[in-house]
Amino acid sequence: MELDLAVDAAAERMEERLGLLKRTSEHKAWLQRTLFSASAETAANHLRRWMKATGMEVHYDALTNVYGLAQTSPDGPDAPRIHIGSHYDTVINAGAYDGTLGVLLGIAVVEVIREARLPLRHNLSALAFCDEEGVRFQTTFLGSAYLCGRFDQSWLDKPDEFGKTLGEWLVDRAESIDAVLQNEPYIRPSDCFLEAHIEQGPVLEAADKALGVFTEIAAQTRAEVEVIGRAGHAGTTPGSLRCDPLPVACRMVQAIDALCQSEEAVRATVGRLEVSPNASNVIPGKVRFTIDLRYPDAAGLRARRDRLQTELQRIADGSKVEYRYREAHWADDAILSPAITDALAEACECVQGEALRICSGAGHDSMMVARVCPTSMLAVRCREGLSHHPDEFVSEADCRLALKALVDAVIRLDRGA
Amino acid sequence: MELDLAVDAAAERMEERLGLLKRTSEHKAWLQRTLFSASAETAANHLRRWMKATGMEVHYDALTNVYGLAQTSPDGPDAPRIHIGSHYDTVINAGAYDGTLGVLLGIAVVEVIREARLPLRHNLSALAFCDEEGVRFQTTFLGSAYLCGRFDQSWLDKPDEFGKTLGEWLVDRAESIDAVLQNEPYIRPSDCFLEAHIEQGPVLEAADKALGVFTEIAAQTRAEVEVIGRAGHAGTTPGSLRCDPLPVACRMVQAIDALCQSEEAVRATVGRLEVSPNASNVIPGKVRFTIDLRYPDAAGLRARRDRLQTELQRIADGSKVEYRYREAHWADDAILSPAITDALAEACECVQGEALRICSGAGHDSMMVARVCPTSMLAVRCREGLSHHPDEFVSEADCRLALKALVDAVIRLDRGA
Repeated sequence: MELDLAVDAAAERMEERLGLLKRTSEHKAWLQRTLFSASAETAANHLRRWMKATGMEVHYDALTNVYGLAQTSPDGPDAPRIHIGSHYDTVINAGAYDGTLGVLLGIAVVEVIREARLPLRHNLSALAFCDEEGVRFQTTFLGSAYLCGRFDQSWLDKPDEFGKTLGEWLVDRAESIDAVLQNEPYIRPSDCFLEAHIEQGPVLEAADKALGVFTEIAAQTRAEVEVIGRAGHAGTTPGSLRCDPLPVACRMVQAIDALCQSEEAVRATVGRLEVSPNASNVIPGKVRFTIDLRYPDAAGLRARRDRLQTELQRIADGSKVEYRYREAHWADDAILSPAITDALAEACECVQGEALRICSGAGHDSMMVARVCPTSMLAVRCREGLSHHPDEFVSEADCRLALKALVDAVIRLDRGA
Repeated sequence: MELDLAVDAAAERMEERLGLLKRTSEHKAWLQRTLFSASAETAANHLRRWMKATGMEVHYDALTNVYGLAQTSPDGPDAPRIHIGSHYDTVINAGAYDGTLGVLLGIAVVEVIREARLPLRHNLSALAFCDEEGVRFQTTFLGSAYLCGRFDQSWLDKPDEFGKTLGEWLVDRAESIDAVLQNEPYIRPSDCFLEAHIEQGPVLEAADKALGVFTEIAAQTRAEVEVIGRAGHAGTTPGSLRCDPLPVACRMVQAIDALCQSEEAVRATVGRLEVSPNASNVIPGKVRFTIDLRYPDAAGLRARRDRLQTELQRIADGSKVEYRYREAHWADDAILSPAITDALAEACECVQGEALRICSGAGHDSMMVARVCPTSMLAVRCREGLSHHPDEFVSEADCRLALKALVDAVIRLDRGA
């Protein structure tokens, strides 16, 4: 089949699959497909079916990663692999494209290469990571970490909201934890990885371009804050005798928002906040919230985190509450592979005449995979930069262009290697 | 048996029962006994057993109110009743005395009168209302409203957190809803009601007195507020493009707290606040919170509510969010019966030499019962004024004094009638 016709056919299938996976959710009213949910299992079955149909050798591991190997190389199954993919889990009330588009593009690239009977020196591999968002266990990049041999054993003790730990889940799923941990990493230093992902920001749309390349991924940190006061009766305790943690936490939220408003490059968000006991006639006893803080480079992030910590401590010191700040996550910025980025940029130029180079404010599995093998990312325009939201949208034409650019990049990488 | 000995014996039993009911909870780690929970059912069984042991005729209605009638009058079961009691449901992470102490005092008064063989002209009635806190359906005073013939049929459609309505629960429990609604009210205009309750405030402790009388109950209102913005990705959306409802809600919480701090007599509380979707890497799309507002008199409350509404509207107008304020509850202040209050005050003078007269900042079933028959309340000192909190505490000596004062008041009311 001619290459362009193969791309058209694969893009059409991809659009149907996006629709099906958008409905594959824990909830009727919104998209929610988190690790170890029934809808994630259903989605994994669809992915395995589509991978099998291309003739790939398909794997489904104990963590529920799905990946398929297409033996496109004449050098056998151990030849260097070009991995293409992303994650198939979602946040709560998610959009249909975050992660999922990159997964379906990986399968579509294999379909196109197979249907156009293009000879390659590499094997092709389609990846669908089980957990990037970390909703269940707060384990960001869990799926890719495992396939890269970077699984952190301390994650085994992390509980989900029902108190069941990741380790307990794995015992249910696998013969033994040891077998899970001793598995040979599927992603190896001799391989390379291409991840396509929606931009999740407004830059491409403003430039009127469908595609761009991420040259780096911003540094990010996540903290968990506890503000502890004293619960009491809402009707009897006068203001002077209260030790209400909520107004104090609210001052902190405003300080965090002020930081976010102060500079275009910084991102500071309180996404999660919980009040305890959370009853209308009880003065709160405790407030917990998260801080998500990002900046293009790690040194700049560190400076802003330090300044914010000083400000939050000052707010706490001016009140009667007890205050705890715990850093739960830190990731330096990731500089992606210049060679892979250049191949993607050349592919973009080929399909749309120009390649925009962008810093990604969002974290991606590529941060993890980049530690093991050369990695880079294709950015796809999404409407109004909207993401982690049900209105997230990528046009069918843009999905097709992304597929074309990825196929082009694979051919370039295969020849250049 | 001599009166004082009977009081001692009943006070000792009451202390044991307080310990048992403190453990009768949905949760191991804290006290939570809400309407239609298994622990509420268990508590009701204990109460029925203790009432039966005094020879009362015991009732357990479809709403799970428990009440017992002691035929102490020679005029038969329809003679005027002196009701004594309170509610046996609790808030979440509750104290052991709120409501429960008043219920157990009601049973103990009957025991003392029976054991001391005191002749009365009234029948005595011990009441244990099933739902005062309104945790499950937001139906404050549900139990007492039903026994007073003031059940509001619109409550039938109120859903609990699982979406099951009060009406659906009642269909499960009763032969028919109609039978439930047509029941003759147990509390009648010819009766009177004494409710003993912990003060839930610091006044008695500051005055070094075990007991006081509530002369009135403050007016109160409850509102539900929604602040709606737009969810988005925490890593990619710059401050200038955000419409985050959380910082706006936080400014509102601070305005409400400022009102509470501005005057000793006002109570303003945000006890419940929920963020949606509540994920660390997602900018919130919606924040909902409650406002609990109280003031000694209804006109003063109305003025402060109006002022607060203006301030919240001003905050909303200064932002990009959508804002909704809905008043969910309004109760005028209740002036309690002077005759019953005087009898209680004389009883207090008799047992401790002085009677403090207090305005209650907390709402009580007495607000509901006072609409039907003469009603007043005995206030019992609690440590540090702490209530709706696991450290809520009343000394054994103060419980005994409360029992003595109630017995004394019953005798006065019976003679004075």
